[in-house]
Amino acid sequence: MAWLRRCGGFFMLCIAVMLAVPVTGHAETGAAGWLRYAAIRNPETLRRDQALPAGVVLLDRSPVPLSAEQELVRGVRSMLDRTLRIDDTLPEEDAFVLGTASEIEGALPQARAGTLQPESFSLSVVHAHGHAYWVIEGGDARGVLYGTFRLLAKMGTEQDLAMLHDSESPSAPIRWVNQWDNIDGSIERGYAGRSIFFDNGAVREDVSRTGEYARLLASVGIDGCTVNNVNASPKMLSPEMIGGLARIADEFRPWGVRLSISVALNSPQTLGGLSTFDPLNPQVIAWWQSRVDALYAQIPDFGGFVVKADSEGQPGPSQYGRTPADAANMLARMLKPHGGILLYRAFVYNHHLDWNDMKADRARAAYDIFHPLDGKFEDNVVVQIKYGPIDFQVREPVSPIFAGLRKTSEAIELQVTQEYTGQAHHAVFLIPLWKESLDFDLHADNRSTTVASIVEGKAFHHALGGFVGVANVGLDANWMGHPLSMANLYGFGRLAWNPELTSAAIAEEWTRLTFSNNPEVASTVDGILLHSWHAYEGYTGSLGIGTLTDILHAHYGPGIESAERNGWGQWFRADHQGVGMDRTVATGTGYIGQYPPEVAKRYESLATMPDSLLLFFHHVPWNYRLHNGQTVIQYTYNAHYAGAEEAAQFMTDWKRLDGLIDDERYQKVLDLLIYQSGHAVVWRDAVCNWAKSMSGIPDDRGRVGHYPDRIEAENMKLTGYTVVDVTPPETASGAKGVVCEGQASCMAETVFHGASGWYDLGVEYFDYRSGDSTFRVFLNQQLIGEWTADNTLPAERMNGDTSSRKTLDGIPLRTGDTIRIEGTPDGNEPAPLDYIAVDRIVSRTDKAAGSNSPDAAQTKH
Amino acid sequence: MAWLRRCGGFFMLCIAVMLAVPVTGHAETGAAGWLRYAAIRNPETLRRDQALPAGVVLLDRSPVPLSAEQELVRGVRSMLDRTLRIDDTLPEEDAFVLGTASEIEGALPQARAGTLQPESFSLSVVHAHGHAYWVIEGGDARGVLYGTFRLLAKMGTEQDLAMLHDSESPSAPIRWVNQWDNIDGSIERGYAGRSIFFDNGAVREDVSRTGEYARLLASVGIDGCTVNNVNASPKMLSPEMIGGLARIADEFRPWGVRLSISVALNSPQTLGGLSTFDPLNPQVIAWWQSRVDALYAQIPDFGGFVVKADSEGQPGPSQYGRTPADAANMLARMLKPHGGILLYRAFVYNHHLDWNDMKADRARAAYDIFHPLDGKFEDNVVVQIKYGPIDFQVREPVSPIFAGLRKTSEAIELQVTQEYTGQAHHAVFLIPLWKESLDFDLHADNRSTTVASIVEGKAFHHALGGFVGVANVGLDANWMGHPLSMANLYGFGRLAWNPELTSAAIAEEWTRLTFSNNPEVASTVDGILLHSWHAYEGYTGSLGIGTLTDILHAHYGPGIESAERNGWGQWFRADHQGVGMDRTVATGTGYIGQYPPEVAKRYESLATMPDSLLLFFHHVPWNYRLHNGQTVIQYTYNAHYAGAEEAAQFMTDWKRLDGLIDDERYQKVLDLLIYQSGHAVVWRDAVCNWAKSMSGIPDDRGRVGHYPDRIEAENMKLTGYTVVDVTPPETASGAKGVVCEGQASCMAETVFHGASGWYDLGVEYFDYRSGDSTFRVFLNQQLIGEWTADNTLPAERMNGDTSSRKTLDGIPLRTGDTIRIEGTPDGNEPAPLDYIAVDRIVSRTDKAAGSNSPDAAQTKH
Repeated sequence: MAWLRRCGGFFMLCIAVMLAVPVTGHAETGAAGWLRYAAIRNPETLRRDQALPAGVVLLDRSPVPLSAEQELVRGVRSMLDRTLRIDDTLPEEDAFVLGTASEIEGALPQARAGTLQPESFSLSVVHAHGHAYWVIEGGDARGVLYGTFRLLAKMGTEQDLAMLHDSESPSAPIRWVNQWDNIDGSIERGYAGRSIFFDNGAVREDVSRTGEYARLLASVGIDGCTVNNVNASPKMLSPEMIGGLARIADEFRPWGVRLSISVALNSPQTLGGLSTFDPLNPQVIAWWQSRVDALYAQIPDFGGFVVKADSEGQPGPSQYGRTPADAANMLARMLKPHGGILLYRAFVYNHHLDWNDMKADRARAAYDIFHPLDGKFEDNVVVQIKYGPIDFQVREPVSPIFAGLRKTSEAIELQVTQEYTGQAHHAVFLIPLWKESLDFDLHADNRSTTVASIVEGKAFHHALGGFVGVANVGLDANWMGHPLSMANLYGFGRLAWNPELTSAAIAEEWTRLTFSNNPEVASTVDGILLHSWHAYEGYTGSLGIGTLTDILHAHYGPGIESAERNGWGQWFRADHQGVGMDRTVATGTGYIGQYPPEVAKRYESLATMPDSLLLFFHHVPWNYRLHNGQTVIQYTYNAHYAGAEEAAQFMTDWKRLDGLIDDERYQKVLDLLIYQSGHAVVWRDAVCNWAKSMSGIPDDRGRVGHYPDRIEAENMKLTGYTVVDVTPPETASGAKGVVCEGQASCMAETVFHGASGWYDLGVEYFDYRSGDSTFRVFLNQQLIGEWTADNTLPAERMNGDTSSRKTLDGIPLRTGDTIRIEGTPDGNEPAPLDYIAVDRIVSRTDKAAGSNSPDAAQTKH
Repeated sequence: MAWLRRCGGFFMLCIAVMLAVPVTGHAETGAAGWLRYAAIRNPETLRRDQALPAGVVLLDRSPVPLSAEQELVRGVRSMLDRTLRIDDTLPEEDAFVLGTASEIEGALPQARAGTLQPESFSLSVVHAHGHAYWVIEGGDARGVLYGTFRLLAKMGTEQDLAMLHDSESPSAPIRWVNQWDNIDGSIERGYAGRSIFFDNGAVREDVSRTGEYARLLASVGIDGCTVNNVNASPKMLSPEMIGGLARIADEFRPWGVRLSISVALNSPQTLGGLSTFDPLNPQVIAWWQSRVDALYAQIPDFGGFVVKADSEGQPGPSQYGRTPADAANMLARMLKPHGGILLYRAFVYNHHLDWNDMKADRARAAYDIFHPLDGKFEDNVVVQIKYGPIDFQVREPVSPIFAGLRKTSEAIELQVTQEYTGQAHHAVFLIPLWKESLDFDLHADNRSTTVASIVEGKAFHHALGGFVGVANVGLDANWMGHPLSMANLYGFGRLAWNPELTSAAIAEEWTRLTFSNNPEVASTVDGILLHSWHAYEGYTGSLGIGTLTDILHAHYGPGIESAERNGWGQWFRADHQGVGMDRTVATGTGYIGQYPPEVAKRYESLATMPDSLLLFFHHVPWNYRLHNGQTVIQYTYNAHYAGAEEAAQFMTDWKRLDGLIDDERYQKVLDLLIYQSGHAVVWRDAVCNWAKSMSGIPDDRGRVGHYPDRIEAENMKLTGYTVVDVTPPETASGAKGVVCEGQASCMAETVFHGASGWYDLGVEYFDYRSGDSTFRVFLNQQLIGEWTADNTLPAERMNGDTSSRKTLDGIPLRTGDTIRIEGTPDGNEPAPLDYIAVDRIVSRTDKAAGSNSPDAAQTKH
């Protein structure tokens, strides 16, 4: 442990406690996450906190409670500007007292809180010997740590600690994150730099970030971390790798985080050199046993394996006619003596489905495959199930297999990394989405069985079960690329601990700890977070149609029809008449029949079908009228416009924080929200134009396809630039753009025919992942803007992934002015342009006054 | 010019205007200085500024006015979030109109402001053709630029521009800065990194910072810059160097800043290879002529030469029996046809004075040497005179030579770089000091002749004259090392423009432009600035004794007796009976007789002698009673304690800004103020203990020499550490310290016998320029603090330069606790310690509540 090594100093035994991160000179990079321990500035809180003890006694000096003690000293140092004394025994004065139940019993019997389960804690103030003791009692070592982090969070959110009385237990034993890190150091669906675990085929030499990560995880009660991609390399089981994994486990251990790994089922063949990987083959079993032995020899608290098999090209037991249960049980039996578990992912499906088969349905796969195996798994096998039957879409119904396994432990798989929800470029707070799944009542056996109660093990009485979050943090200082994305990691841990928590409570806690207790800051950030999922769903894919992204590549920008006419099965079957997958029992794929009867009945009938999931379950005409009174097509238009407006509002709202939070994070988030509001328009236009072209039905408000403030690049006077078609056509305005190829630079020019006034001038261009083209904008002969297209967007061509907007604010245009854009290509990026938008500014004063005046209106949503 | 090069783009002539520095992602490094153009956020100001025009017309497209235009566009862009249109002719709408008098006359005769002198400007709003024109009219090109910067400063300080009506002229033509940069890239008395001009014997390849510097200078009306050390290298006149200087001049020119250089008078010999440098020798004259010709060939607007001769080892005309006038006139005659001037420094003195000669007096030198030459200088010679007769001390009387040259142009030399006033480590706002000199009335010819009126040329009717500031900015991003030091550069320019401005007005302007218009910010920063000189004088050297620093080396920390018993003549002649230099006519050096009669009379008599300069002029007993009623010795004690308390208050005051300004500059200044408050105690103790030991008179308040809260390192239980004497003794508490030599690490340990409670624990240690020792502090066995001694202080040994304090706040000490310090040496720095101080915290709540509560009291001083 780093702090012990640092302590080994002069010639006497020292009980060292990690010092507070120096207060001086720290830049707000986001590295501290929600553990900033910002100095308390509220004089009332400070006065109140005077009453807190000056010292701490730790009754158990094993590694995890030691972390608790050092964290308490660090947090109090940073928040209250004082150093706590560390005592060995109960001092003759007030003190914080940390220990597990039996230790508290011995030292301070008055304090016992009753029976505490493992990982649970109790916080209380006990008066004894004429002193007050702030007692953090843990059901076990982890409980002490979790209780300490809870106390620090209460302190950080300025709660009154004088009446401390809190007792908490985690909802379920499995509260793990999965990292999709590859051993070459890349991260599948990672958006914040390279792996903190691996580099160049091995565990990194410097694994210090993994310890910092474990501290963040522990602070929200996460107790396990699977460090590599579910598409696992067989090399994960090599002796060298196991040595490296042991170094990571050493970093995890003081924080109570168990290390686990994903394994490839064909490892006995590819790594072990056997001729088979049949899970029932004795040689295969012996090989696996040797690997499990090697792992536990070096990592005694090793957590277990995660298995992705027979899925998206991964090898699996089907190759030998074996079932998932055969494979899972073989491994589970080896792990069991060590307390290890085996998580087998239910994300198994055929990705060569026949589009012409109206009965084919990828959504059916998990239930079809795993339901028959219920009761055939070892008791340390947990089936790991994505919340929906497809793949982390912006809205899906819950997976019916949750109710389809009564005799098998289950874990829900949530995705912290925003693969289909804007990656590190859009602010999308996912807790409300997850809450919808967790709170959903499947009514198994005609009784209340929420998904949360099922994965907690309560509904069907399993000791195991829980929550898995796909997190994919990276080496970037701020862990997840987008500062607001950290709210999803925080929220995942908090929900896994207690799925009863509300989205609003989680947002509020995170915002206060991450940014400020200032009410203006808290209400603004919370407002953005709590509306962000709805906004994103609005401008990407409404009514349960799924995230209308390019599913074959980046999973990012609009790429609508990529989902259709291929074997991947993310179909929504749109045509000129209608849209939606018929999954009814009566006329469709029968998927609805996988749900327990009460739910199935509700989904089967259009009369009881909720609007929000309509197109997931039913094929309806474009002019089908929703419960909300709008037609499907008009609602599609309206939702996409409303979503884009909400995204623009986030940007405006955020500007209220200028000067109220640190400049670094203010500016970083502002830049991202500006980008997001531009990309929301790309999404809006792509989906609306596609829907209009597909349905032939115009927008009854006349917006779609009519852009009076827009001048298409292809209609401008071009010098050097050439016009090209963009594919898919809806990802460029007018389906065309212009590129500068074979020229040093090119020019697009137009005369402004609008009314004279103040304008915001938007330039829509395409910014490829590689190549840094530069653009310069001239008003007549005056240079009024220039920038470099150097964002890291996930495509190398003109499409919905790369379409980006630069807005030049506050430009005085006069009728007859010439607007000219000069593009200079770089690398393979031909300075591509789509259009310019001239938006008249109605009132700059009102606009500006909203930004940071003391009397600014509260967030409106 | 950089912006023109950037503009040369596509195939049409472009009138480019430099864009605003991008608003996004900028860190507040201090690089922008007072030209931050922070976005206006006050809604009322924003509403008011709506009325400002949308465009600008520049009637003169020569380089300097073009800079004005680009600056106006840049400033408005940044402050008001809008881009001004650039028009060629007066538009049919409101506009800013920029031009010189004759151009305004032609385009908008209604606007003419009357006769404008060169460099002057007039700002007004003129109504014509049904429109309003915000007219910036310049007496010449520079006037247009200065007027534009003035308008932008008004905008930045949120003044109402609707009633714009302002007409200003500079006080004097010479408003120059001197840089003491060496051609190897080092800077004499520079505290902010290496030279922006030179590197490795030549002008730097990248001189972009020199253009940025010129912009800062021009913004406060500075029109000349001498780029090299007055201890000049003869290589300044080599052909290669002249080519390099021309590149700097190109950067200066758009900002109206003329380049000049310092020259060594022996250059004809050392560089030219002649056998003599006698200024009257024809070969010498011919050689100089060739150099002047070469300079003007490449730099047509070259400003002239600065000469330091016969001073501190510099060669001079005395070697050939020639006078300063002989040398100055020889060069001046060559410069005159080009409009160049010759500044000859009056800082000429014998630094081998005889300490035992009670009549010897360095203060006399300038008058003795230059007064006889009055009337013998060419009219483009300016004698450059430091404000006091010694050398930039914290307090000096004005130099009598100001009144001693009636027929010679004069410039006052002020020192922006804080050589004797805390360098880049102490905040000392020098404007009040300079104001004391400028406002001082010498009563020449029995009429009012302030120093300002003399250097302006008004008192004695000279066309030339003015202000020279020794600035010494460096490559560090923030230019001067200490963010608050920039107020001195700003203030120098503002005072040179108008010496009537008050210190408070200058501080207020600078603070608003540099930090914020928030009244809390402005009053806090202004409070610190305006009290800082008084505080520094208080803790370094009061009653006119001079800055009691080590004058032989760093000119930084206390080194009191270094001034005595040597040839440099900075004597104060202290002994057990008394202190002070007797400079009276009656019994002393006769220096007072150099002043005009009214001033001389006032200084000669103790009855009329101001306390503040007493020891500069008189030798008095230690118990001499001042006009203020205190004895000299008691006042010395009181002033040093009060000064140190003020310095501590600055730190407390600054903490009120946490969250009100950017974190970067907040933290940078806070760190410096914390250091300063510790170093003020070092100063206080050194001077007080020295004075007590010299006078034998105790402090009647019992403070000096009694430190009940202090535990000397030499009295602690030492392991590895050895006790050493410190020289001079007063620069260490108890005259001793401890060093760790020949050991990997050492330890000093003590038992705390005070009362239990909350304490701030201060550790006084020595931090050499090189070597980064580390220190760790343990409370019993608990590590409570660690740091590295990595400051860049100007000495390599234990003394007043290196003595530093680290304070660990909020430590709960209990009677009987063990405090242990572990020091680990590095390089030649033996982890040296002086003492620890345990300061009981009376009320943490009050302390904390003062820091940033909305209802915090106003700054107290």
